[in-house]
Amino acid sequence: MTMMRAIIYDGKGGVNLKERNRPRIEDPTDAIVKIIYTTICGTDLHILGGHVPSCKADRVLGHEGVGVVDVAGPGVKRFKEGDKVLISCISSCATCKFCRKGMYSHCELGGWCLGHTTDGTQAEYTRIPLADSSLYPVPENVDLKALVMLSDILPTGLECGVLNGRVQPGCTVAIIGAGPVGLSALITAQLYSPSMIICIDKDPSRLEVAKKLGATMTIEAGAGVENKVKDATNGMGVDTAIEAVGFPATLELAQDLVAAGGTIANIGVHGESCNLKIDKLWGHNITLTTRLVDTVTTPMLLRLFASGNIRAKDLITHDFKFGDMEEAYSTFKSASKHNALKMLISME
Amino acid sequence: MTMMRAIIYDGKGGVNLKERNRPRIEDPTDAIVKIIYTTICGTDLHILGGHVPSCKADRVLGHEGVGVVDVAGPGVKRFKEGDKVLISCISSCATCKFCRKGMYSHCELGGWCLGHTTDGTQAEYTRIPLADSSLYPVPENVDLKALVMLSDILPTGLECGVLNGRVQPGCTVAIIGAGPVGLSALITAQLYSPSMIICIDKDPSRLEVAKKLGATMTIEAGAGVENKVKDATNGMGVDTAIEAVGFPATLELAQDLVAAGGTIANIGVHGESCNLKIDKLWGHNITLTTRLVDTVTTPMLLRLFASGNIRAKDLITHDFKFGDMEEAYSTFKSASKHNALKMLISME
Amino acid sequence: MTMMRAIIYDGKGGVNLKERNRPRIEDPTDAIVKIIYTTICGTDLHILGGHVPSCKADRVLGHEGVGVVDVAGPGVKRFKEGDKVLISCISSCATCKFCRKGMYSHCELGGWCLGHTTDGTQAEYTRIPLADSSLYPVPENVDLKALVMLSDILPTGLECGVLNGRVQPGCTVAIIGAGPVGLSALITAQLYSPSMIICIDKDPSRLEVAKKLGATMTIEAGAGVENKVKDATNGMGVDTAIEAVGFPATLELAQDLVAAGGTIANIGVHGESCNLKIDKLWGHNITLTTRLVDTVTTPMLLRLFASGNIRAKDLITHDFKFGDMEEAYSTFKSASKHNALKMLISME
Amino acid sequence: MTMMRAIIYDGKGGVNLKERNRPRIEDPTDAIVKIIYTTICGTDLHILGGHVPSCKADRVLGHEGVGVVDVAGPGVKRFKEGDKVLISCISSCATCKFCRKGMYSHCELGGWCLGHTTDGTQAEYTRIPLADSSLYPVPENVDLKALVMLSDILPTGLECGVLNGRVQPGCTVAIIGAGPVGLSALITAQLYSPSMIICIDKDPSRLEVAKKLGATMTIEAGAGVENKVKDATNGMGVDTAIEAVGFPATLELAQDLVAAGGTIANIGVHGESCNLKIDKLWGHNITLTTRLVDTVTTPMLLRLFASGNIRAKDLITHDFKFGDMEEAYSTFKSASKHNALKMLISME
Repeated sequence: MTMMRAIIYDGKGGVNLKERNRPRIEDPTDAIVKIIYTTICGTDLHILGGHVPSCKADRVLGHEGVGVVDVAGPGVKRFKEGDKVLISCISSCATCKFCRKGMYSHCELGGWCLGHTTDGTQAEYTRIPLADSSLYPVPENVDLKALVMLSDILPTGLECGVLNGRVQPGCTVAIIGAGPVGLSALITAQLYSPSMIICIDKDPSRLEVAKKLGATMTIEAGAGVENKVKDATNGMGVDTAIEAVGFPATLELAQDLVAAGGTIANIGVHGESCNLKIDKLWGHNITLTTRLVDTVTTPMLLRLFASGNIRAKDLITHDFKFGDMEEAYSTFKSASKHNALKMLISME
Repeated sequence: MTMMRAIIYDGKGGVNLKERNRPRIEDPTDAIVKIIYTTICGTDLHILGGHVPSCKADRVLGHEGVGVVDVAGPGVKRFKEGDKVLISCISSCATCKFCRKGMYSHCELGGWCLGHTTDGTQAEYTRIPLADSSLYPVPENVDLKALVMLSDILPTGLECGVLNGRVQPGCTVAIIGAGPVGLSALITAQLYSPSMIICIDKDPSRLEVAKKLGATMTIEAGAGVENKVKDATNGMGVDTAIEAVGFPATLELAQDLVAAGGTIANIGVHGESCNLKIDKLWGHNITLTTRLVDTVTTPMLLRLFASGNIRAKDLITHDFKFGDMEEAYSTFKSASKHNALKMLISME
Repeated sequence: MTMMRAIIYDGKGGVNLKERNRPRIEDPTDAIVKIIYTTICGTDLHILGGHVPSCKADRVLGHEGVGVVDVAGPGVKRFKEGDKVLISCISSCATCKFCRKGMYSHCELGGWCLGHTTDGTQAEYTRIPLADSSLYPVPENVDLKALVMLSDILPTGLECGVLNGRVQPGCTVAIIGAGPVGLSALITAQLYSPSMIICIDKDPSRLEVAKKLGATMTIEAGAGVENKVKDATNGMGVDTAIEAVGFPATLELAQDLVAAGGTIANIGVHGESCNLKIDKLWGHNITLTTRLVDTVTTPMLLRLFASGNIRAKDLITHDFKFGDMEEAYSTFKSASKHNALKMLISME
Repeated sequence: MTMMRAIIYDGKGGVNLKERNRPRIEDPTDAIVKIIYTTICGTDLHILGGHVPSCKADRVLGHEGVGVVDVAGPGVKRFKEGDKVLISCISSCATCKFCRKGMYSHCELGGWCLGHTTDGTQAEYTRIPLADSSLYPVPENVDLKALVMLSDILPTGLECGVLNGRVQPGCTVAIIGAGPVGLSALITAQLYSPSMIICIDKDPSRLEVAKKLGATMTIEAGAGVENKVKDATNGMGVDTAIEAVGFPATLELAQDLVAAGGTIANIGVHGESCNLKIDKLWGHNITLTTRLVDTVTTPMLLRLFASGNIRAKDLITHDFKFGDMEEAYSTFKSASKHNALKMLISME
């Protein structure tokens, strides 16, 4: 009764489903959550790729999930055993100088710790620090599978892409990259009624999905992108260019697509510096933003999800049992081959 | 009676004070202004340096000045002969899609044309297109010499530096470059009561001026700047880093000085691209802005100037008669040698 | 060829379709527009009711319309003969201190003058002062009939109701009054994706229309409204309460419906003062706003209309030929009896 | 060692200094603070006047103070025994739906409880619930006496008056009421550099203080106030009218003083409803706000106070020992007679 199964990072690029001790309350404000559904993030692959050295071998991976509170620490005021909860990928104390600014991602006591510096959610049980401000009550009558998309990618698309990009009614938007996060930006951008959303990707099948999810125009990545975007916007470029890939070339492309007065919103995780075309942009009144998701919009997304205004389910392409999670990782690693977006993992 | 003297760009790096026909009304919305005071801008030196190819030989230079309306075109509704006026460096139609967004700098009919694509203000008379929205009535009882600082550098420091940099009460600010524009950012930043303003320059005499104008700390440019700024800010960096120089190195320094959650506001005119340290900044929730001054804050600055809240006069270091204006150019070109900031040119 | 037909206010509560001299250019910035479609506004009935003493007998009524430029004055820069245009109900100089703040309604040279202090649009021809900033080019391939709804009621609903009311994704909204303006607020509120919009009216047929236009809940006006709204919002009240009627009772109801932290946005034209329940509201962190439509959102609405995102046409319930316009007035005066919203008037 | 002295409300309009058990930790997130300085608030007088029925007899009064942490509960993460702290008048969980919106005043677990629904700070020791987000570390080298002004009145003036009133550089402000809260609005308004601040009060000695604290104009309350304000503002009225009294007449006066496009910010605590002149204001584009102080600006005020930018000390007119606190209440009740603003109470 004290053991559980969990996905363990081997420190060498692989994961294994193994037995592990169940987590326990370590601090009065912790909660233990029994996982119902979880998923795999592109960031998990970054860990396997060795790009996140702060994540060490033997770590239970995963920072997304829906579950039920198993134990609430004595200092937890808002949740009790049996409460269904959405787990935020970001843990927040809500009171430090960063949290007070809405920068939960930089919380002095939390931030991105799950599946990174503390054990995560790809397990039967997980310990959530700072539970009161890092878990959210599940609204009634919602699809728990689709809800998992609110742990990370939907707030990421909304906060880093749409809000930072200042998407407004009637504006024009280009989204570079139609993976799960780019598509999350596409879904949430529509909350603000832009008149044009152009999605750009090298994978035609992802562009197909983008069209179904509301893109007004799609462009296959390649030489003519800038001209096609300019043609579609009377030569002006777009009001908002969202980068959802993470390479120098795509962030430089964003600089070519943005109109004078517009905004470049970076979502991608970057391993290298890039070129800033300040000789061209210094007089163009542009804004460039970066952000690690803060999940400050989670309450808003939950209300919209409960009222049926967020097409979260469309991001799930594959279902796996937790016992088959190593295979889920394999599928996700070859996303293009499998037309894969998000893997939904169900506990048995 | 139809001739005047004017400073004429020779197309080869020099200027000459020459006779020239007085300008006439060309469009119903033009006004002819008789200049009382004008000045020289760093941008004028950029023209002489050949960096502004859109400015051709034979152009009357100058985009700053205070004067009196000599003739108002039949379509001018807000000014009449004899009105004292402040000339904005930016001409604006007020109604195109850019002007409606407050981007007068990109006005479809105006923008920066004075002393650039139309004849400018370093002359006894100048033609101001779109006069109603490009001139401002002079408040009563103000110092007309100091007022010239409101044509360009004070709105530039305020809009491109302070407002784009989101300076707020209690925040920390670093200003890289203590020339006229950097000092204008210093003066106008204090309208928002930051708790710390650090000025950085290689010229100790400019740092002395910065201290007198309200800098709480000054740092001589060089190897230790980042450490000194971090030491002064509990290791965090500054909330707002304002670049007022225009070189890759200084804009890259701004990226090192800005705190997580902070803003880099570029004012400098850049001739080359620079490095964007997106590998470090992608998760730091920063904002980087660029802007050509729009002069949308001119009415606000005029109110503050009239109520004594803008120390504009301190930016003037030298007085010249218009007849000595070639010498004024020489002095301004060797600003460091003469501890020069702004040259005030008086018509006789 | 110099005469036309026009709807003339008789100063005693009635209108007549009469012959009248065609308008001419009076100022270089005027344009003469040949009307294609116009409509009748609730404000026209206010004039007939004697509530607008600044509107004198013999005035041509009407401040809404779509037409074609017949003559452009010599100072008009953005329009020429033959251009199809949308007429804004507000004339704006774009440069006075109010226009610079986006308060075109208070323009020192314009404001609401059409069909009020200058002759209006219910005529074959109309003179538009300050044409450059008071007319808008018609996008290609749009329905000109539906477009008339953008002259006044759609920007009114959006600016006075939705924007002043700070409608945001996921928020809850109550709209008191489901006439043309309340329904315009309903249509434009959806640009910001609230999770709940409750429409309140005494006329069940208008509530039917509200449901079709996107209301998530409707309530017949009467004693139980406050309780029903509280029940629907977990006892909190709504984030935004929009008043679109113009009586003390309805603005007082808005005060009962708004949640702590919420906003009351008044659209209604009021003839009497009302009670402000400040003893209850002083500690509730609420905001109450008033506004005369400024039509600063017209460019945004035009983009959204052109991209198919504004259901303007649904507001038109009746079509009349201009020759039958006296009958159109009769129908509009008995709106409830005819289930009338907006009358579309076509020139022959 | 378990007893202390405290000011106890008798439920009948009076207070007594009495012995009382020292408070103990009741919840893991509580802290016990030993008071160094406290003060008396106008709200305490409201309690004595019977206007706050939720405050019962036997309550220890007081919601302001500076002290030192005596005991930190096991769930307190940011404070330990011996830490010097500023006590916020508002207790906040930082995580409920109101706190996430910055509405700590409406916190589901806290809000204004000190000296109201839980025992307060006019005592040798006080229990602070939700200590992590309701206490603030004291900056080094600050005047602890003046710091007490940051518990309540300075954030009240700033949040309810200045921020809600949208005070901006160059704007015009009228403050109705020059008591401690009105003067706090006056002090903090200057952080945003308005060009004019008019203070209005019936007490000439308070107007004298207002002048010393930066008012550019003072007006004795009475019949001519509206005309004097209009004269000073070119007939426009003020951009921001701050009500800091709490009577219908003063809030109605604010409606007469505000310019079109301006803001009325209510700070006063009101016991009656008042007249809303909506027949005049509906088309004037005004905003009226209410707010219970949230103390979300306390970190900003602390930074400004530490850097010498807040003249808090000038609000203290009288010093008392805690043993003489009944006399301090007497003096404060007859504030006008004693030219009293804030009483500073020192523990022995």
